[in-house]
Amino acid sequence: MIFGGIFNPMATPFREGDQALDLDAVRANVRWFARSRLRGLVVMGSNGEAAYLTPAEADALVATVREEWPRDRLLIAGTGHDATIVTIEATKRAAERGADYALVRTPSAFKNQMTGEALTAHYRAVADASPIPILLYNFAASFGVNLPTPAVAVLARHPNIVGLKESGGDIGQISEQVSATPDDFEVVVGSAPTLYASLCVGAAGGVVAVANVVPDAVARLYDLVQAGRHAEALALQRALTPLARGVTGEFGVAGLKAAMAVAGLTPGMPRSPLRPASDAVRAELEARYAALDAFLAAAPH
Amino acid sequence: MIFGGIFNPMATPFREGDQALDLDAVRANVRWFARSRLRGLVVMGSNGEAAYLTPAEADALVATVREEWPRDRLLIAGTGHDATIVTIEATKRAAERGADYALVRTPSAFKNQMTGEALTAHYRAVADASPIPILLYNFAASFGVNLPTPAVAVLARHPNIVGLKESGGDIGQISEQVSATPDDFEVVVGSAPTLYASLCVGAAGGVVAVANVVPDAVARLYDLVQAGRHAEALALQRALTPLARGVTGEFGVAGLKAAMAVAGLTPGMPRSPLRPASDAVRAELEARYAALDAFLAAAPH
Amino acid sequence: MIFGGIFNPMATPFREGDQALDLDAVRANVRWFARSRLRGLVVMGSNGEAAYLTPAEADALVATVREEWPRDRLLIAGTGHDATIVTIEATKRAAERGADYALVRTPSAFKNQMTGEALTAHYRAVADASPIPILLYNFAASFGVNLPTPAVAVLARHPNIVGLKESGGDIGQISEQVSATPDDFEVVVGSAPTLYASLCVGAAGGVVAVANVVPDAVARLYDLVQAGRHAEALALQRALTPLARGVTGEFGVAGLKAAMAVAGLTPGMPRSPLRPASDAVRAELEARYAALDAFLAAAPH
Amino acid sequence: MIFGGIFNPMATPFREGDQALDLDAVRANVRWFARSRLRGLVVMGSNGEAAYLTPAEADALVATVREEWPRDRLLIAGTGHDATIVTIEATKRAAERGADYALVRTPSAFKNQMTGEALTAHYRAVADASPIPILLYNFAASFGVNLPTPAVAVLARHPNIVGLKESGGDIGQISEQVSATPDDFEVVVGSAPTLYASLCVGAAGGVVAVANVVPDAVARLYDLVQAGRHAEALALQRALTPLARGVTGEFGVAGLKAAMAVAGLTPGMPRSPLRPASDAVRAELEARYAALDAFLAAAPH
Repeated sequence: MIFGGIFNPMATPFREGDQALDLDAVRANVRWFARSRLRGLVVMGSNGEAAYLTPAEADALVATVREEWPRDRLLIAGTGHDATIVTIEATKRAAERGADYALVRTPSAFKNQMTGEALTAHYRAVADASPIPILLYNFAASFGVNLPTPAVAVLARHPNIVGLKESGGDIGQISEQVSATPDDFEVVVGSAPTLYASLCVGAAGGVVAVANVVPDAVARLYDLVQAGRHAEALALQRALTPLARGVTGEFGVAGLKAAMAVAGLTPGMPRSPLRPASDAVRAELEARYAALDAFLAAAPH
Repeated sequence: MIFGGIFNPMATPFREGDQALDLDAVRANVRWFARSRLRGLVVMGSNGEAAYLTPAEADALVATVREEWPRDRLLIAGTGHDATIVTIEATKRAAERGADYALVRTPSAFKNQMTGEALTAHYRAVADASPIPILLYNFAASFGVNLPTPAVAVLARHPNIVGLKESGGDIGQISEQVSATPDDFEVVVGSAPTLYASLCVGAAGGVVAVANVVPDAVARLYDLVQAGRHAEALALQRALTPLARGVTGEFGVAGLKAAMAVAGLTPGMPRSPLRPASDAVRAELEARYAALDAFLAAAPH
Repeated sequence: MIFGGIFNPMATPFREGDQALDLDAVRANVRWFARSRLRGLVVMGSNGEAAYLTPAEADALVATVREEWPRDRLLIAGTGHDATIVTIEATKRAAERGADYALVRTPSAFKNQMTGEALTAHYRAVADASPIPILLYNFAASFGVNLPTPAVAVLARHPNIVGLKESGGDIGQISEQVSATPDDFEVVVGSAPTLYASLCVGAAGGVVAVANVVPDAVARLYDLVQAGRHAEALALQRALTPLARGVTGEFGVAGLKAAMAVAGLTPGMPRSPLRPASDAVRAELEARYAALDAFLAAAPH
Repeated sequence: MIFGGIFNPMATPFREGDQALDLDAVRANVRWFARSRLRGLVVMGSNGEAAYLTPAEADALVATVREEWPRDRLLIAGTGHDATIVTIEATKRAAERGADYALVRTPSAFKNQMTGEALTAHYRAVADASPIPILLYNFAASFGVNLPTPAVAVLARHPNIVGLKESGGDIGQISEQVSATPDDFEVVVGSAPTLYASLCVGAAGGVVAVANVVPDAVARLYDLVQAGRHAEALALQRALTPLARGVTGEFGVAGLKAAMAVAGLTPGMPRSPLRPASDAVRAELEARYAALDAFLAAAPH
C-alpha cells in the first residue's frame, strides 16, 4: 500500500501584519513533522489554505517543503484548480519542485455542469498530462460538487490515478468507493471523527487536520486498527474526536493554527478573510489538547 | 443490553384493489419471523407505512402481531405523531395491545419550530405519560427534523426513555450520540449499509429493512462483530449492501415488498401514493437476493 | 376568477391546559373575519395546525366554521394526508360538512418515492373521488416534496382540479406554474413577503397567514395591484412584510396567535410540541403591528 | 442611478484545440455589444468563466475590452477571489486597465467560516484599498456562501461600495436588500427569469446572461417597467424566460455560447472541464431564439 498510514494536510503559516507566506516557519514545521511517525505530508490541501495562494507562492512552498522533508517520505501536493489547463500547469510545476503525488480536488465552478462525464474527462486529461501519479480529491461539503462513485470506478482504471481522498465522512459512500474499485486503488479519508470507522470499512489511510497537532496519536490509532485491537482503537478515537472537531468544522483553520501553537509549532496567522481564533477558542482548544494528553499518558502502549 | 441484536421494521401488507390492511398476511409473516433469529420486531416503523394507517388500523395491527409474536420476544410499536397529545394517546393504545416499547419519531410539522427545547418537552411529556418505556426515533432525511445530540443527552436521563433509534447513517453523529449518553442508554441504528460501521462505533443493535428479507444473515453480521471477527463481518456487510440499498433508498417500500415476496413472505401491496415495483425492479432485486444467497452458501460458519 | 382575492389560513384555537379544540373561540373568530373584506376562509391549512387534529376534531371544525361563515363566501378545507385513501375519506367528510373546495397538500411520507408520476396518480384519484373541486397544494419547505411544474400542467386538465396553492415564495417557480397552465387554472400563493411580486407575475390571489391579523390591509394590496397602482402596492407590501415574516418563518404559529390577540381575536394556544410565544416575541409583534397601523393610517385611500 | 439599465456578463471566447483566450473574438463581440442599447458591460463575471482565467489573461482581457468599449459606457470587472489580498491586487490591476467598477464576489473557501463579520471585514478591506468603487456580488447557489442582508446594510454605508449584484432570484431576499439599504445603494439582479419581478420590487437593473444574446430585448423589458407598462413587461418576460433558462441553469455557459453563435457573435468554446453544447442543445436553443424573435416581431413598439 502506498498510502497506508497517516498524513497531515499541513497548515501554511502567514506572517502577522502583511500576511506574507512565512517560509522560515514552514521549514521549522516540516522539521517538526519529520520527527513524527507520519507516513507523509500533504502541502496545499484545503487546510493549507491552498485557495489563498498565488502561483508563485505555491511554487516556493512546494520547493521549500521538499528541501526539508526527507526524500524517502511521501510528499503530496494539492494542485487542483477549476480549469483543466490551469490544473495541469500547477501539477507540472509541483512535480518539478519535488512532489511525489498530486492531490487534485474536483473543480468547483459551474457546479451543475460538473457531471460525472465532465469530471471524468477532466481527471483523465490531468492524469494523462501529469508527470507524477494523481489522487482524486472529493469533498462535496467544501467544493459543492460530489464525484459520483461510478466515475471513481472508471477513473480507477487509469494507470496514473492511484487513489482517492474522500473528505466527506459519509461511511456509506466510503464503503461504496472501496467496493467499487480494485484493491490497489487506495481510498484515504479526510474526516478525523470518522477515521476509525473508515479504517474498519477498508480505507487505506487518513489525511486529517488533527495530524498537524498530534501526529503520533493519530498514527497510533492507525496501528491499533492494523493490529486488530478494536476496543483500544475506538477508545482512542473517542479521545481524539473533541480536538479533531475543534480544528476543522467547529473552529476551522484558525482553530487548527491555535492548536498547533499549543503543540509547539509555528503556525502563523490565517489569511484574510479568515479571522484569527479568539481567546475563548484558544482556551477551549488548550483544554481539549490537555484532555487528550491525559488520555494518552494513561493509555497502555 | 435490551436492544443488543437485530430487529425488523415489519412491512405492513395491504390487499390489492381496495388496499385494505390484510391481517391474515400479517399473521403469516409474523410466524415466519418467529422462526428467525431476530431479537425483536418493530411494528409501524417508517417502512411499515405507519404514515398511511388510521388509528383503528393501528390498533388492529398491534393486537394481531402480539397474538402471533412470542411473549418472550420484544415487540416495539411506532407511536409517534406530530402532536404531543396524539402521540400520547397512540402510545397508550399500543401498550394496551401488548407492545413492550414505543418507538417515537420526531414530530415533523413546523420544522423550524422544532428546536431542541421543543423536542425535549415533547419527549418528556410522552415519556411521563407512557405506560411502557420509549425509544427516541431520529431520521432527519425522512422527517425533516434533526434531534440534536445535546437534547438526546438530556433525554437519556429520563427513567422511561431507554434508547434512541438513529436512522441517518451518519457515523459521526452516531458516535457522538453514543459518547454523549450513559452506557445503559442504547443507540440502535436504522441504516443497513452502515450497520457494520455503526456496531464498530458502539451501536447496540439494528432495526433495518433488509431484516424483513434475510433476518438470519443480518443477525449473523451482528454475531460476527460481537465475536471480534471483523474481516468476516466486513465481507458480509459488503455482500448485504446491494440488497439493503435496494429495499430502502433505491426502490423504497415497493422494493422491500418485492424482495420479501422473493424470500417467501406475503408482503401484499404498498398503499397509494406508493406505487408497486416494476418488473425491472423485481428482476433486479431477485438478482441481488440470489447473489447474497450464493455468498452466504459459500461463507464459512 | 374563483380565487381572485385574499384568503386567511385560519388559526385553530386550542384551550390552555388540556389543549382541547375551542369551538367557541372558532365561532368568535369566524364572525370577526366575516366583517372583513376577505374573499374566503381556509380551514385546516398548515397554519391551522391541521397536522395536530384528529379526524373527529376536523369534522367538528369544518361544521362549526360553516355555520358561522356566510354561505356566499368561499370555504376551503385542507384535507390532504399522506395516504390516498385517507385523503379521499377526509375530503368527502369536509364536503359533507359544507366545504366548497378542498385544499390537498402533497403527501410527505417516503419523499424520494414521490415522483411526478406518483403525485399525479394520487391527485387524480382524489379528484375523481371528491364531491367538491380541489386545489393542489405545494409547499416544499414544509412537506419536503416539490410538485413538479410538468405534473401541475397535466393535472390542470382534470375537470375537478381548479387551481394550485403554492406556498414557496419562489417567483421563478410561480411564473412557470402560471405559464404552464391554462388561464382558468388559478395559482394562489402562500408567501406574504412576496405577495405583491406574485400578483405581478400572474397569481390569482393569496392565502397568507398575516390575513388572520390584518385582513383588510392585505385585501387592499390586492386591490392596488388590480388597479395598476404599483408604487402604492409596493409601499404597502414593504409595510406589511415585517409583520408577515413575524407570523410565519420567524415566530411561527405561536407568533401568529400572539399577533391575532393584539388584533382583538381569540386565537387560543398552539398545541404541543409548539410552544407559546415568549413575552419578547409578543412585544416585538406588538411593535410591528403598531408600525403597520401607523403606515395604514397615514396612507391615502 | 448608476446601474439603471441592463448589462451583459460577457462570455469569454476560447479557441478550439488549445483553449487559449481569443482576444480577436473579444474585440469583435465588444463591438457588437457597443451597437446595442446595453447600459454597460461586465467582464469576468461568473458567465465570463472568470474562475478559469489566469491573472495574466485577466489583465489582457480587461485591457482589450476597454480599448473597444466606448469610454462613456460602463465597464465593470469581476475581481473577487477567495483571499482578501489577492482580491485587492486583482481589483487594482483591473482599475489600471480601465474598469470603472469592480464586481467582487463573496469568498467561497471555508464556507462555514464566512460569517457576516468575516465578510464585512473582507469587503471593507477591499473597498478601502480599491481605486474604483465596488459592487458586492452575492450568488449563494454558485459560491456556497450567502451574504447576510444585515451585512449588506452595514457595507452600504461605506463610501466606496455603491451597490450589490444579487444573482439568486429569491425575490423575498432582493426585497429585503432593497428595503435595508439607502436609496442611493443600488441592487442589480442576475437572474433573468425573475428580472421583471425584481424590477417591480425595486431593483435598479439587471446583469443577465441572456443579454449576451438579445441585449435590446432585455433593455426593452427594462424600459417597459420604467414606463409603467406592466402587462407588456410581463408578456415580454414570459417570452424571454425559455431562452434565459437555456443560457444559464439548463445548459450553462455552453448553452450561452451556442445561443450567442445563433445571434451572430463569435463566442468561441467553453474551457474544460466545461463541455461544448451538444447538437441537440444547439437545436433547442435555436428554436427558443426563433420563438422569441417571432414574439418580438409581433409585439407593438
